[in-house]
Amino acid sequence: MALVKVHGPPMSTAVSRVLACLLEKDVQFQLINVDMAKGQHKSPEYLKIQPFGQVPAFQDEDITLFESRAICRYVSEKYMDKGNKGLFGSSNPLAKASIEQWLEAESQNFNPPSSTLVFQLAFAPMMKLKQDPGAIKLNEEKLKKVLDVYERRLGESRFLAGDEFTLADLSHLPNGQYLVSRTDRGELLTSRKNVGRWWNEISSRDSWKKVVEMQNVKPAKA
Amino acid sequence: MALVKVHGPPMSTAVSRVLACLLEKDVQFQLINVDMAKGQHKSPEYLKIQPFGQVPAFQDEDITLFESRAICRYVSEKYMDKGNKGLFGSSNPLAKASIEQWLEAESQNFNPPSSTLVFQLAFAPMMKLKQDPGAIKLNEEKLKKVLDVYERRLGESRFLAGDEFTLADLSHLPNGQYLVSRTDRGELLTSRKNVGRWWNEISSRDSWKKVVEMQNVKPAKA
Repeated sequence: MALVKVHGPPMSTAVSRVLACLLEKDVQFQLINVDMAKGQHKSPEYLKIQPFGQVPAFQDEDITLFESRAICRYVSEKYMDKGNKGLFGSSNPLAKASIEQWLEAESQNFNPPSSTLVFQLAFAPMMKLKQDPGAIKLNEEKLKKVLDVYERRLGESRFLAGDEFTLADLSHLPNGQYLVSRTDRGELLTSRKNVGRWWNEISSRDSWKKVVEMQNVKPAKA
Repeated sequence: MALVKVHGPPMSTAVSRVLACLLEKDVQFQLINVDMAKGQHKSPEYLKIQPFGQVPAFQDEDITLFESRAICRYVSEKYMDKGNKGLFGSSNPLAKASIEQWLEAESQNFNPPSSTLVFQLAFAPMMKLKQDPGAIKLNEEKLKKVLDVYERRLGESRFLAGDEFTLADLSHLPNGQYLVSRTDRGELLTSRKNVGRWWNEISSRDSWKKVVEMQNVKPAKA
């Protein structure tokens, strides 16, 4: 069987979401770097597989896919019998619905403020861009409100969608990791009793530790 | 069989997305108004079924769900044999993956700029809020780039995910409708050859025309 291919740098939160999923599902993959500093993601060749010019792009046999959460769903369905079999629930519509609602909560409620904070607090200084204090304040307030809901939810169940670690939890790892390890706002997650307990548990999974290792390796110069 | 319940006003784009899905699937429902002007969506009672205090909330027998796209997926799976059977593809992971990637494109690429434009151009003046010209300009540019990708895609296939109308198309209706009917930027959609053809086709479906009718009925005064 040919390896599936992931195009994009592991530093990208969307790429790392897909890598975490592949590692959970024990699906072997080939990682193909896309040099975004050189604008490779906007090259005509790359746009053929990812028309929006974003990372990641994903290839499995003769199909190509984009959008990290769509790729994660596909990998979980296609490789249902490999690796972590409960990652995307069962074919029971109700179990799946619980995963989907928390996966959407990540996408619609957690991702916008957390990715803005990560950009403003960690990447803007690295890229020598000016920080926007108004955006930082606003998004910190938004994220607090979201995490207050998570705190109550995680007082009722071990993971977001129920008793098992699923795609809904996994999808929070990329921005959560940067928030905790590269900004001074990590306590938004770690100081909350239930969210902190959950964060420690999901971020210490072998799959995720492997992704963080991949993020910390500098790509070889071409 | 008890009717499923949708809590929220049809004017909300997220509520109207769920209504369009229920009508496509021919699933009867009861619509329960949530008076957002009176803050009913932040009441302790409502927060029990929608912890983020957003609309819609959805109930089917003894389960409650939130997040419009998660609800649409659930309705399509649970009522697979009713109404439009191709709305969420088949159990073939590949057909589903194509729908999922364009549903995510709507959620991540189309929704943010289009909902900002709708808010700034249609709702801010209605609510006597000051418009933000910078946000309008920036989001118009973003939306144009997204629609350039759609234009190429819709030159290759009748609908976003292939030859059939699916959830991926449906999910664009709420913001697309407001953009076309309540702002002066509708030509972003209608002036593009393929996007315009697609927009005319999806927005004239009976299911969607019924939702627009529901949006235009003023709720009775309590």
